[in-house]
Amino acid sequence: MNLSRRDFTRLGALSLAAQLAPPLRAQSSNRKIGYAIIGLGVIADHFMRGIQATGNSKVTALVSGHPDKAARIAAQYGVPKSNIYNYENMDSFRDNRDVDAVYVALPNSMHAEYTIRSAKAGKHVLCEKPMSVSVPEAQAMIDACKAANVKLMIAYRCHYETTNLAAVKLIRDGALGQVQQIQSAFGFYCGAGAWRLDKELAGGGPLMDVGIYSLNATRYLTGEEPSSFSAYTYSDPNDPRFKTVEENINWIAKFPSGITASCNTTYSAPMDGYFRVYGSKGWLEVNPAFIYEGLNLKAEYYDSTGKQVKLDQPNPEKDPIHFTNEADHFSNCILQNKTPKTPGEEGLRDMQCIREIYRSAGISMS
Amino acid sequence: MNLSRRDFTRLGALSLAAQLAPPLRAQSSNRKIGYAIIGLGVIADHFMRGIQATGNSKVTALVSGHPDKAARIAAQYGVPKSNIYNYENMDSFRDNRDVDAVYVALPNSMHAEYTIRSAKAGKHVLCEKPMSVSVPEAQAMIDACKAANVKLMIAYRCHYETTNLAAVKLIRDGALGQVQQIQSAFGFYCGAGAWRLDKELAGGGPLMDVGIYSLNATRYLTGEEPSSFSAYTYSDPNDPRFKTVEENINWIAKFPSGITASCNTTYSAPMDGYFRVYGSKGWLEVNPAFIYEGLNLKAEYYDSTGKQVKLDQPNPEKDPIHFTNEADHFSNCILQNKTPKTPGEEGLRDMQCIREIYRSAGISMS
Repeated sequence: MNLSRRDFTRLGALSLAAQLAPPLRAQSSNRKIGYAIIGLGVIADHFMRGIQATGNSKVTALVSGHPDKAARIAAQYGVPKSNIYNYENMDSFRDNRDVDAVYVALPNSMHAEYTIRSAKAGKHVLCEKPMSVSVPEAQAMIDACKAANVKLMIAYRCHYETTNLAAVKLIRDGALGQVQQIQSAFGFYCGAGAWRLDKELAGGGPLMDVGIYSLNATRYLTGEEPSSFSAYTYSDPNDPRFKTVEENINWIAKFPSGITASCNTTYSAPMDGYFRVYGSKGWLEVNPAFIYEGLNLKAEYYDSTGKQVKLDQPNPEKDPIHFTNEADHFSNCILQNKTPKTPGEEGLRDMQCIREIYRSAGISMS
Repeated sequence: MNLSRRDFTRLGALSLAAQLAPPLRAQSSNRKIGYAIIGLGVIADHFMRGIQATGNSKVTALVSGHPDKAARIAAQYGVPKSNIYNYENMDSFRDNRDVDAVYVALPNSMHAEYTIRSAKAGKHVLCEKPMSVSVPEAQAMIDACKAANVKLMIAYRCHYETTNLAAVKLIRDGALGQVQQIQSAFGFYCGAGAWRLDKELAGGGPLMDVGIYSLNATRYLTGEEPSSFSAYTYSDPNDPRFKTVEENINWIAKFPSGITASCNTTYSAPMDGYFRVYGSKGWLEVNPAFIYEGLNLKAEYYDSTGKQVKLDQPNPEKDPIHFTNEADHFSNCILQNKTPKTPGEEGLRDMQCIREIYRSAGISMS
């Protein structure tokens, strides 16, 4: 099959049509999906606040290794004491009808175990990204959820975020003409002692943690699957933070239609997450693109009448809107028996890409 | 030799100290260096206007294949008719004492021939970048100028440009801490019919033409020589513009201290030239960085007292200031018998890098 660039653009447009549809909103049903929150760290806090603003979801249980913290948060969200679990007795929520689904917000290396245990307990699973620390684990998570007949969604916020979706729509509508190249970066200075610096918990360094945003963006912006990667990594041998995970990684990716992308990530510099897309008729930039609020879309291109269009669209939405949107979507998928826009397979694909990037950089991952 | 990152930074600072020195200015001598302008295209126009603003340089001869155009420009710059040459009789300027130096502003593939002929005629040579279309040619140009005991400078404007130099100084002064990664891009939509699209004349596509700005920037920003490259290219097989040169190329580069760089260039999208440098203590961006005016430096970092510094420094200088600065520098090097900051060896190094990038992308270059 010899597809031209135009064919790819058209195929992308078709396959992405669903992605661009307005979010499913709670309909006549008054039933709210009850979530058990597994892991009560920073991102779980955003998620729980996000859930409060949905019409179809609520926090109904907590799973934590810290009873005091769990008790405090339970009081805050009206979770009965009987619905507080720890990591040992969590599986008993199988019989708790308050719990329809779980939100897995643990360190990366624990995603697979807690997703699979939740599936076996008959609960739908919304799992944070990266979905796992290896490709086989990701596949096992998908298989477990299928076997248990529960839904699995990976929490790719940006797929449910209006500015990112507006950028995708501009590209699909052809505003930029033929996309040629993409640049993206996301990184930060990670202080010593963080679990992210321990490969046993994190599975990898900034690529797994935040580089995955750039990687995933190149996939949703192009609507294509990358065909090859080339990557460099560097870690300061004298910096004790980088005994097990990489400090820096950058990579280039090639897509079937010929689009190429350059991406950077680091744990040693402030590197606001952004992407810029260059097309034959113009460019767009979302900067910042991946944080919780304050997103901004800029673009310059020529419309069909030849008139230059300049966009500068700050997004006024505030945190935790991304989490509200993603919880709303997953709950509606459960209520309406639909497949999430970002199912386990979406996460698996990123894990395969991450493995290829690491392989090119000389870093092993299973 | 096992150098740490700190050593590299220090070495860079030493080797760049000269580069950061204020431009040599005309001193007591009233003598002006007379230039023969070889090739009267767009960039020559900038250069001639730039020369007018120096105190040490003037246009004294023209070399062109278009007698009418040459006559018109000669009148404009007060060049006597006897100092108008064509490509055949140019060598006779050997005996013309009005001509001290030449400015080679021809298509890339002609740089070597006209540099070498000028050197053999005893004239100093300021040659546009890329200095040649191959590594052996670049070496031959250096050898010819040495043999003739004339100076050779490659017209790397940005080495004489205040905003680029301010960025280098911030890095060398340690404002950003340890530099981790650099991103840069430069490209444009090149319409059909341009000589740039003909490999016979251009030697290559956007990498040679404008990607060289990003390449050179990664070298002057780091003060290091890249140790390896990896590159992807794509050219639409159905686009008649790209029968002989590439449409797109992007590459990653690794430097000895561990810094990595990602660069993009294209002939099929508006891609304003810029660079962004990420360090452990902050970042800086020059955007635009490579065009003739309107440059802007932004930076955010923490100073030695821990106070956050935010810079936003638009450069009010107007075209043709870059050309004034570079002509001023070269003329002073001639007057004071000094080596230019960007000698032939600087151009040769870029040609070697370009060959490596092309090689990685599967494009042959000698």
